[in-house]
Amino acid sequence: MPELRKDIITREWVIVAKERAKRPDQFKKHQEMEKKVLLTHDPNCPFCPGNEALTPPEVMAYRGAGEPPNTAGWRVRVTANKFAALDRGAELDREDYIIYDRMQAAGAHEVVIETPLHHLHPAIMDTRDVEHIIWAYIDRYNDLRQDPRIKYILIFRNHGELAGCSMAHPHSQIVATPIIPQKMFNKVRGLAQYREYREKCAYCDILNTEIEVQERLVSLNGSFAVICPFASRSPFETWIVPRNHTASFANMNRFEVMELAEALKDTLLRLDRCLDNPPYNYQLITAPIDGGRYDDFHWYLEIIPRLTTPAGLEMGTSIYINVTPPEEAARYLREALDIESLAANAGPR
Amino acid sequence: MPELRKDIITREWVIVAKERAKRPDQFKKHQEMEKKVLLTHDPNCPFCPGNEALTPPEVMAYRGAGEPPNTAGWRVRVTANKFAALDRGAELDREDYIIYDRMQAAGAHEVVIETPLHHLHPAIMDTRDVEHIIWAYIDRYNDLRQDPRIKYILIFRNHGELAGCSMAHPHSQIVATPIIPQKMFNKVRGLAQYREYREKCAYCDILNTEIEVQERLVSLNGSFAVICPFASRSPFETWIVPRNHTASFANMNRFEVMELAEALKDTLLRLDRCLDNPPYNYQLITAPIDGGRYDDFHWYLEIIPRLTTPAGLEMGTSIYINVTPPEEAARYLREALDIESLAANAGPR
Repeated sequence: MPELRKDIITREWVIVAKERAKRPDQFKKHQEMEKKVLLTHDPNCPFCPGNEALTPPEVMAYRGAGEPPNTAGWRVRVTANKFAALDRGAELDREDYIIYDRMQAAGAHEVVIETPLHHLHPAIMDTRDVEHIIWAYIDRYNDLRQDPRIKYILIFRNHGELAGCSMAHPHSQIVATPIIPQKMFNKVRGLAQYREYREKCAYCDILNTEIEVQERLVSLNGSFAVICPFASRSPFETWIVPRNHTASFANMNRFEVMELAEALKDTLLRLDRCLDNPPYNYQLITAPIDGGRYDDFHWYLEIIPRLTTPAGLEMGTSIYINVTPPEEAARYLREALDIESLAANAGPR
Repeated sequence: MPELRKDIITREWVIVAKERAKRPDQFKKHQEMEKKVLLTHDPNCPFCPGNEALTPPEVMAYRGAGEPPNTAGWRVRVTANKFAALDRGAELDREDYIIYDRMQAAGAHEVVIETPLHHLHPAIMDTRDVEHIIWAYIDRYNDLRQDPRIKYILIFRNHGELAGCSMAHPHSQIVATPIIPQKMFNKVRGLAQYREYREKCAYCDILNTEIEVQERLVSLNGSFAVICPFASRSPFETWIVPRNHTASFANMNRFEVMELAEALKDTLLRLDRCLDNPPYNYQLITAPIDGGRYDDFHWYLEIIPRLTTPAGLEMGTSIYINVTPPEEAARYLREALDIESLAANAGPR
């Protein structure tokens, strides 16, 4: 019998279809589309070293002291998105238009070029390089939040064409908006309502529960728990949740950044092993920055493999049908790496 | 400069990227995937006449008097979905599970087989046959709403693989849930807030505005206006909105059903002409049926062509980037049919 499950924060329901539960090897659609052998360097790729002139000028790069900007030699490089959806130069001009509400898309839209190597992605990178990417997120976040027009910053990664990725070279994106997305309001409200009723943080409760119950737990280190959430919208949806209650991911200390890099690389490698380089999106869900107090917020990173196609039901009701129960997904992910293979893949520390 | 626009009911923002505006002929991805010549009859298709035994028994069919059920000869046929996500036999057993909330997926999941002809779809059907489909929706809706466990019914259509359709034979689906989807709560709340402030229905205001301003209007008949909404989430998103304020689509009279069939067929044909048989979902957005009063609700049908891939930004914030401003989409759709070609395609009345 399929089961309805509620996300206790957003109050969205999902249908978990246990009967037609799919194993990892039954999601193969992406393979035909996305199995390409990538070069370590593609002379036509604007994100590859030597082609810095093909992108907008860099806003930041990790490179040796004294090396000139917009030349090769960087390890991580951040530029404005060439096709930016939001514009740092725009005015805040929110206005009524007939009965509607509109404004220039003032904000920022940046690209984090994660590595000079064209063929890599975080699942198969050295953990230290994943750590550099996270530091780039934090540095850009802390710079962008100085802009008083900006009320929310989303950092995300699209991997694979089926996940909306149009450039093969490994990169993440940062979007800074002059409004708080409705989805964040809903999350803030859901957390407040839970706290009002139970006098606790919902995500802290989820963490404690999942660490105790174990069946949806993928892995655990000192700072992070990795779980497949109870009301997973998609097969193999996975959250990386900090064990310390913190509103903003930018508050991480150095040790936590290191452990996030380990957890992220490890989780993406498990997904890669289970699902053979699946398309996915990951998003850093963190508190708004409009000047309000968001101490009740609990940031986390959500990874959503794109293995099924949302259709009319999802569009009309936002009720998702999930054909792999999170308990099974977590079991597959736990079993995907044993100690030996993990050590072999983690790279030098 | 891209523009941020707010949906005045859901308060969701979209980014309309005017600069990189795409013309209809720039959305061609679906064509390679979905260009297949379909037979009028496929002996292996469980929805084709003669194969009635391959589906669950019919719950309703339009066929000649005295003809036995589950045999050929029907014009429209409705069965339970063979892989139903919700089950008419399930108990209502909502329960706490640790800190979570879950229940058996009690409800219904039905398939409306729209025509015996394997190769058709509403854009290229006779308008009278589209009318039969709408009557089937209404008949099933009125039957399912008798079930006291059911609080919401969504009727939707997935067209094309990129829109999540796995069976080529033309069909729609009906999903009846024992909970009100969060998305409907949001819509009900948004309509109530608008009414509290302006003492009017937001959708009535939208209709009046769009009919007056014209630039987002696709077509108009006595009962329905067809518009590309101001805050369209996707290129060529199109709404068919009844001009009479009514909460439930099942309240339509015979004349309105006829005019909805005309508007729906005409709109899908325009989309077909502009975008060359695009993948799409359509959903009938109508009031909940939990016994509450929803006089403020205004039902409508939304058509969402699936021309771009939602990625991390959309997943993380539900802010959509739309690369075709609705003003341009509406213009293309208005110009897609002139009087002569419309008459030639409408089939006999």
